[in-house]
Amino acid sequence: MHIAVIGGTGDEGFGLALRLARAGHDVTIGSRSEERGAQAAERARELVGDGAPVDGTANEMATAGAELVFVTVPYAGQADIYRSIAPHVRAGRIVVDTTTPLATAVGGRPWQVVRPWHGSAAEQAKALLPKEARLVAGFHTVSAEPLQDLAHPVEGDVLLCGADAEAKAVVGGLVDQIPNLRWIDVGDLSMARIVEPLTALMVSVNRRYRLKDTGIALTGRESWGRPDA
Amino acid sequence: MHIAVIGGTGDEGFGLALRLARAGHDVTIGSRSEERGAQAAERARELVGDGAPVDGTANEMATAGAELVFVTVPYAGQADIYRSIAPHVRAGRIVVDTTTPLATAVGGRPWQVVRPWHGSAAEQAKALLPKEARLVAGFHTVSAEPLQDLAHPVEGDVLLCGADAEAKAVVGGLVDQIPNLRWIDVGDLSMARIVEPLTALMVSVNRRYRLKDTGIALTGRESWGRPDA
Repeated sequence: MHIAVIGGTGDEGFGLALRLARAGHDVTIGSRSEERGAQAAERARELVGDGAPVDGTANEMATAGAELVFVTVPYAGQADIYRSIAPHVRAGRIVVDTTTPLATAVGGRPWQVVRPWHGSAAEQAKALLPKEARLVAGFHTVSAEPLQDLAHPVEGDVLLCGADAEAKAVVGGLVDQIPNLRWIDVGDLSMARIVEPLTALMVSVNRRYRLKDTGIALTGRESWGRPDA
Repeated sequence: MHIAVIGGTGDEGFGLALRLARAGHDVTIGSRSEERGAQAAERARELVGDGAPVDGTANEMATAGAELVFVTVPYAGQADIYRSIAPHVRAGRIVVDTTTPLATAVGGRPWQVVRPWHGSAAEQAKALLPKEARLVAGFHTVSAEPLQDLAHPVEGDVLLCGADAEAKAVVGGLVDQIPNLRWIDVGDLSMARIVEPLTALMVSVNRRYRLKDTGIALTGRESWGRPDA
């Protein structure tokens, strides 16, 4: 699949780009600057291995060319980025938002969150995208550090929110291609109001126990099977 | 330890009472009605085994006699219950609040939450207690069903929030006495704003996958040790 990672020069996006390229997908790293996108792609190709199908360009170009778009940007810039890419999201495309409204966006602490007007960053994204875009929110509980460490699997669950069950299953399929990572359909997009702040919870726990790679898993997940349609 | 479980006739409180009695503590089940408290205690004694140290009475009496008080009540009644027990909480006592502000309190769905004025139900409780009470919030991610099933261990992590690290460690000590259950110090009481809604997340997942006993665990917990003081 041809996947764009908007904001893919950041830690979380770069980690996702590495993992998706390692899984064999064509990845385009998007950045506000075409040049920085290209530089990150070069770094990714070095890390994933020669001939890895990663390129980089500006966010708008990356979006226009992709079958599926990840948006991994800080909350402070999220609305602007969505406004810039929205005209380039083709009808029926799946967009995956990973934003957490950390209070750092307004000078606060990374273990605190602010409340977006729409309820969650994902719902804000939804309001800025064309109506036909299929938005899924997730990956808030997967730390950037283990994602980037290709030598080790990633422990934990990706909690996916969204109205479109089929879109969640497509994104879940990508999650299944990342070693050890699992996915759970946690419900509608509004559940992002609960899931997004978990990034702040993990920051608090990491800080308290001097860790970098806390993740979150639901217990008993092994025996569940697939969600009811 | 002599422990009161206020609202201990409810599923979560009753499960906690069973587990704490099984661990050897003197447990008093509190209820709005002295009679229903006593009935629940009788049922608990039958389940835990003959001679289990469980009695039951009214919430106020239970609070006055206890060294540590669990408050396990629905959000709709939380403020009233705290007002009624506050005069009976003795100085320096630890109070553990397990309330989640589920939207059911106002006719909404159990996978939705409302936002308490103070930020979280725990912070509302803090505002209603005497200043010297040592409030810890936790157990929101431990389902009532596995707690009550004494034949099986309880999987998952208890996420403890509060300003008093020593009080969290005391409550953590109780958690450690429940087979397989673990505890994590996730930070200040305000982190309850993030932790409490996880109950609603679990309801959503249980519903979607037809489960009853989802729990939440932080990955890599085994190797952490204790939080930095």
